[in-house]
Amino acid sequence: MKRRILLQVAYDGTEYHGWQYQPGSKTIEGELNIALSALFGEPIQVIGASRTDAGVHGLMNIAVFDTDSTIPPDKVAYALNQKLPEDIRIQGSREVASDFHPRKTKTRKTYGYRIYNATFPNPLWNRYAHYTYFQLDLERMQQAAAYLVGAHDFQSFCAAGSTAETTVRTIYDISVEKEADCFVIKVTGNGFLYNMVRIIAGTLLYVGAGKIDPADLPAILEAKDRTKAGPTAPAKGLTLLRYEFEENL
Amino acid sequence: MKRRILLQVAYDGTEYHGWQYQPGSKTIEGELNIALSALFGEPIQVIGASRTDAGVHGLMNIAVFDTDSTIPPDKVAYALNQKLPEDIRIQGSREVASDFHPRKTKTRKTYGYRIYNATFPNPLWNRYAHYTYFQLDLERMQQAAAYLVGAHDFQSFCAAGSTAETTVRTIYDISVEKEADCFVIKVTGNGFLYNMVRIIAGTLLYVGAGKIDPADLPAILEAKDRTKAGPTAPAKGLTLLRYEFEENL
Repeated sequence: MKRRILLQVAYDGTEYHGWQYQPGSKTIEGELNIALSALFGEPIQVIGASRTDAGVHGLMNIAVFDTDSTIPPDKVAYALNQKLPEDIRIQGSREVASDFHPRKTKTRKTYGYRIYNATFPNPLWNRYAHYTYFQLDLERMQQAAAYLVGAHDFQSFCAAGSTAETTVRTIYDISVEKEADCFVIKVTGNGFLYNMVRIIAGTLLYVGAGKIDPADLPAILEAKDRTKAGPTAPAKGLTLLRYEFEENL
Repeated sequence: MKRRILLQVAYDGTEYHGWQYQPGSKTIEGELNIALSALFGEPIQVIGASRTDAGVHGLMNIAVFDTDSTIPPDKVAYALNQKLPEDIRIQGSREVASDFHPRKTKTRKTYGYRIYNATFPNPLWNRYAHYTYFQLDLERMQQAAAYLVGAHDFQSFCAAGSTAETTVRTIYDISVEKEADCFVIKVTGNGFLYNMVRIIAGTLLYVGAGKIDPADLPAILEAKDRTKAGPTAPAKGLTLLRYEFEENL
């Protein structure tokens, strides 16, 4: 009988064309399929949770796959890491219900967005932070962020061309903190529209730099118009930090 | 009249064969010479402070060069950053005395060594931390580190083949701290022997993993024998963090 195995996947997205499998392109999903198929000696295709964009990083994305193999589920992580490129590393593996689908299950996801803010760029943050020399005001960014908590129609924070049925999402928590020369935004929600976290980051960046007033956030939400929010911040500052499934598995 | 300009240089050392110029190899010094010569339209060779090894990073290494140009010294940083590869970024520039030599001036240097310690490697620390799954004991590492503070003969912590006249160095301060899943060692001293910080890191790693007793550190120092200390920890965990010149410039 096939068993369904869940993988917690961490990756540096710099060198990848995003999560989702694309023939002829280096993707996280593609590398997982290659490594799993080699490990188990049968063709395996994972089902992923979040299809992160090119350049976006993951500390905990989720993938599941089915296998007849009797290898203990918790050992899959160790064996698979031997087959994967160095910039993808499984952080854990376990068996789940055979009908568990990571995109059809209620979840809480947390994304982090990092901005390096100093007079000069720092090469040690090149890959993992967006750089700006505009001096940012932490308190203004925190004030603006607070307006986004709760259930809202986030159409103003959704890239054009999205096929989502509804643009209502719930943000449970959002924080903006200073860590040395970095501003770190963390957003936890039940789901995110296409580019939503990057548009939130770009909007908070504009707020911090004085280009948008914190008190304008309610009007930006109400407008349901992408052009009212700030720019889409670059992919490299974004990391999928945590996945929590609301059901018991 | 020639003026001497000092540069504060930050770099991700991953892709470089170290600081020091080598014909035919990509080095930090080589890239600085190329960019400065292009910027000023005359052949320029920098004098560097620390010749960091291949793979070692810098947040603040120091280089000086001489020029007839009348460009304001503090503007050199901005102009030079336009000419340099993305993984090298000048953090500041200013004029210094024309006889100032960064390797013949009394300094305090601070190095950081980062160890990522968890069940699985983290791809987002691949470039900047050494990974170990051995569980490390912070308190033991702190106890061992304390023995290294002060003026000591560090021959046991010096790579074979060093041509240093004396192996006595002074460590002003050494700290070991936990930051999430990382152990961060910071060492401030008046100078360091070849591979000295990496051997200190390797020794503290062995102490943390239970392979060396903290109380053995005095005997390891007294032995003046490289084989008594721990291994040389990998280059990628090491970053030159700070340079302080003891004289007024």
